[in-house]
Formats: sequence, structure tokens, C-alpha cells
Amino acid sequence: MLTEKEIIRIFAAKLGIGDLDDVALLYKRVVLKCDMLVASTDVPPGMEAWQVARKSIVSCASDLAAKGVKPDSAMISLGLPRGVTRPYVEGLANGFAGASKEFGVKIVGGDTNEAAGLVIDCSMVGFANRKLPSRSGARPGDYVVVSGMFGLAPAGLAILMKNAITSGMFRKQAVESVLLPLPRRHFGMALAKHFSSSIDSSDGLATSLYELATQSGVNVVIDDVPAADGVDKFAQENNLDAHELLFHGGEEYEIVATIPKAKLKQAEAAARKAKVGLHVIGRVQKGTGDVFVEKKLLENRGYTHLS
Amino acid sequence: MLTEKEIIRIFAAKLGIGDLDDVALLYKRVVLKCDMLVASTDVPPGMEAWQVARKSIVSCASDLAAKGVKPDSAMISLGLPRGVTRPYVEGLANGFAGASKEFGVKIVGGDTNEAAGLVIDCSMVGFANRKLPSRSGARPGDYVVVSGMFGLAPAGLAILMKNAITSGMFRKQAVESVLLPLPRRHFGMALAKHFSSSIDSSDGLATSLYELATQSGVNVVIDDVPAADGVDKFAQENNLDAHELLFHGGEEYEIVATIPKAKLKQAEAAARKAKVGLHVIGRVQKGTGDVFVEKKLLENRGYTHLS
Repeated sequence: MLTEKEIIRIFAAKLGIGDLDDVALLYKRVVLKCDMLVASTDVPPGMEAWQVARKSIVSCASDLAAKGVKPDSAMISLGLPRGVTRPYVEGLANGFAGASKEFGVKIVGGDTNEAAGLVIDCSMVGFANRKLPSRSGARPGDYVVVSGMFGLAPAGLAILMKNAITSGMFRKQAVESVLLPLPRRHFGMALAKHFSSSIDSSDGLATSLYELATQSGVNVVIDDVPAADGVDKFAQENNLDAHELLFHGGEEYEIVATIPKAKLKQAEAAARKAKVGLHVIGRVQKGTGDVFVEKKLLENRGYTHLS
Repeated sequence: MLTEKEIIRIFAAKLGIGDLDDVALLYKRVVLKCDMLVASTDVPPGMEAWQVARKSIVSCASDLAAKGVKPDSAMISLGLPRGVTRPYVEGLANGFAGASKEFGVKIVGGDTNEAAGLVIDCSMVGFANRKLPSRSGARPGDYVVVSGMFGLAPAGLAILMKNAITSGMFRKQAVESVLLPLPRRHFGMALAKHFSSSIDSSDGLATSLYELATQSGVNVVIDDVPAADGVDKFAQENNLDAHELLFHGGEEYEIVATIPKAKLKQAEAAARKAKVGLHVIGRVQKGTGDVFVEKKLLENRGYTHLS
């Protein structure tokens, strides 16, 4: 059993935090984001401690990426179960240290507590260069774009949690997309200035589209469903619903955004320059917050965490 | 049973958050602080939902106060148990809204999750006017000062948790100091510029003194024990150890700081002007991190949460 001080010492050593203080001084034009990870609903089977810690950073980094903001600093509040083992705590610390390097974000402090199960709250700060795209700026005529294809992480969850069967490269990619998710930082940094609205897709594609549609007071019409390669086949083989995986799955850290018609060409050029994929999947129309997929009303239902 | 959306809507309405977004844009010279409250260890019996929410804000505000930083904005991450009732959630929302007004801190967003028990993580941002006092700046010759007397909240905890007996004004004050703690904002804002080191006392006075002593590489010698009126009598009546209540109790949001000898007169004048009490309780001496109280070595032991 570790004491709080021992836990803090492990983190401080791993993260190179010298001055153990409750308050960290940052500087100008700050964007703040917080995200809580609760093990019982956010940690799939097979995810190691360092991957759990990394995921808590990814969740915040992804939300900042959707707004085109580079992460600068983060604080970590931890709730740890009584009797947490040293290897597990070290695993977490390794994960934070690795993610700190991977995403270029300084971890400047935190808080540890005893809790019934593992809880990690990450508070992340970045700097804005310009007005942030909101969720309410989509206008009729805008294009709906995404940073990548969908269905891979939900397939990975089905493999990890329900022993869904598949093999080879698809299995590897699907499982990795759950255990080592990648926030779309380059996409967000290169393109956010062209977005009229944006959001990340971690609560599911349907939820993201409905958020933009309802908060902007428009309809969204998807005519090119962004399915990752192999998802249809995987769904058939396992008697799963591919539409469900694509729209109501979760744990996917893509960016969903709208781009005014007049800016699409510039955005496409910026995407080529940044070597990121920019996928147009639909259009914004006049309306009152509905989302249509191939002419049918999409169910407004989010990802239910690890249910 | 409330859905996440209903919970968010309740908070958004209570707090006047119009644009429900994951990311909030703040501005210059930021100081970041996070603090996690876990109901099982941080919520004493008899504390109502709004008081719990308020306490999570107080914890952050107190740490900023110790550094002389005015809180500006906060984000709240919530872990709520399945089946949490609407009145409880509304109680929390009321508490956040009230604390937002009481402490002049904008609540700019947050995150909600399902957890085994209530968890609140508050991330707070403020702006610094000057270099912050650290925990490592105490130097031999400095005075050790506190913002108020100790023992009242630990007595209140004994009343709430162990049915300790007392009556009249002391009981009222002791219980109120637990349920409605007051961070020492005016003290911190008026005096932090004179501090060579500072910390708040929420983990107990002994822990605070040892943090300053060890991080500064000095000894701390307390010769005027800051006991709140009535604590000695309360301890005697209930067969409790007054020294334990004063030094190893918790839930007290006083500021513990050091002030260089040359600045004490100025600090005392500033305290009079701000109408806050400034209590000299000891001196800093050469040493290697020991704390002495009335010539005896103080036990380096913190407050054990609601044990």
C-alpha cells in the first residue's frame, strides 16, 4: 500500500516536476479543457495502466485539436482505489510521461485522492491564435467534413469486450484504435481556421452531428457515410449492425466539422499541405436540428460507455 | 434516473452557461489549479449537496488565495453515481452557482460521468500580478504567520462524526467551519506580495509546516500555538487531544506563510488596512526540514480524511 506522498513522489520523478506545488503559473491567451476518465466506464478490458493514463490526455488533446488549439499544459487529478499497487501507479506515471512527450504538453501539477475505483481528471490548457470554432456556427450551404473514417474503434471494442471474431490487419488496427487512440492534432491545427463549427467524435458520430445541428439550428445531411475499410465485412461476420458501429459507437477521436462553401478549396489545399485527409461527407441545410443519413432520419443516440 | 443531457441542462441553466462546449477561451497570465473531491473521504455527515459543490470550489479558491491569486474561471468534472436524484443534482448546481457568485469565479464548462460514488474535480484559473510565492522560499530569520486560529474545523468533524458533545456558540462555529469553510481570500490578496513562501492548511497544520520546512530546506520553530478559542475546553470535555486537533486535524482553509523580517512591518500595515488578522506563530531557522512546537519535534503526520 502506497501513501499519498509516495504516489506523488513517483509522479513527480517520472514527470520531472521539481517544485511540488498546488498552483502552476502559466501565461497568455489560455484555453481550458477538462475531462474525467472513470475506469469502470472508460477503460476497456486489456487496456494497461500507461494506456489508461495516455487516454486521459488524448481525450483533452482531442477536444483542443477540434478547436485548432495546441495543448500547452495539463494538471491531473487522480482518484485511486485503496490498495492500488506500485506497478499500476508507475504504469500510470509512465503513461502520463509518455503522453506528455507525444503531445508536447507539460504536466504542471495535480491532486491525488482515494476513491472507490480509478478516476483521472485531466485539465488541459492551450493558447488560441484566433476565435475558436464553436458548435453553433454551422450555416446552410456549409460542407460537413471529418478527419477520418469511422467504425474501427467500435469494432475494436466488440473484439475486446464481446470476443467478436476477426483476424489479421483489421483485428490489429481495430484493437489498437481502442488502446492507443490518436487525436487528430495535425488536422485540427491545419484546418480549424476554416471551420464554421467543430467537435470531436468521442461520444459517437451521431451525437457529434446532432450537437452541431441542434446548437447551430440547422439540419445536417450525410450522403457519403464515412465507413472505415473492413467494418462492413467485420459486422457481417459477427452478426453486428455496421450502421450501429459507424454512428453509435464511441472511443473514436475524429474531428467532425463544417466548412463554408467558399472556404472548401482553401481547406483542401491546407489539408494536402499538412498531409491530412479531409473527407466531405455531407452538407448543412436549413432546418431545426435534424440529421439525415442517406435520406433517413438518424437516431439521436450516443455511445453508451462500455455497456 | 437522469440522463447525462438532463444533468448538463440543469447545470447549464443554473450556471447561465449558454454555449455548451468542451473548450472555453480565457485570457492572459493564467494560474491553473485542480482539486478533486471524493464524497467517500471528503464529505462529512450532514453536508448537503450545495455545500459539497461549494466545498469543491473553496478547495481551489483557498489554494489560489495562498498565492495571492484572484480566481477567474473554473471547470467542473463530475462523477455521479448511477441513480443520483434530481434534487441532489440540483443541489450541486445551486452550490456551484452560489459559490460562483460568492467567490467571483466564472464556471466556464465541465464534464459529467458515471462513477461508483460522487467525485467532483474543480479546475480553476486565475491571473497572477507577480511571481507567486512558492513552498520553497522560506529563509532563516523569516517569521511564520497564519491567517487564523486552528482546531475549530477538527472539533466540528468530531461533533459531526463522533458525536462529540458541546453546546452553544462553539458548537455552531465548529460545525459551520466544516460545512461552510471560508477560504482566506482577503488575507491572501492583501499579503501574498510579502510572503517568502506559502501554502494553505487543508491537509492539516503539521503537514503545511513540514511542506514549507522541507521544500525550503529550513527548520520551523513554533512558539505561539494558534489555538482557536474553546478548543482546549472542547478537547478536555470530550477526552480528545487538543494538540491533535490543532496540528493533525484537517478541513481548515487557513493560509500558512513565511514573511522576511524586513517585510513584517509592511505586512502588518497591509493586514490592518485589509482588516484581516495576521498572526505570527514562530520563526524560520537554519535546518534540514524539521518543525518544532514549543521545543518538541512535531510529528510529521497529516490529516487522514474522515477516518
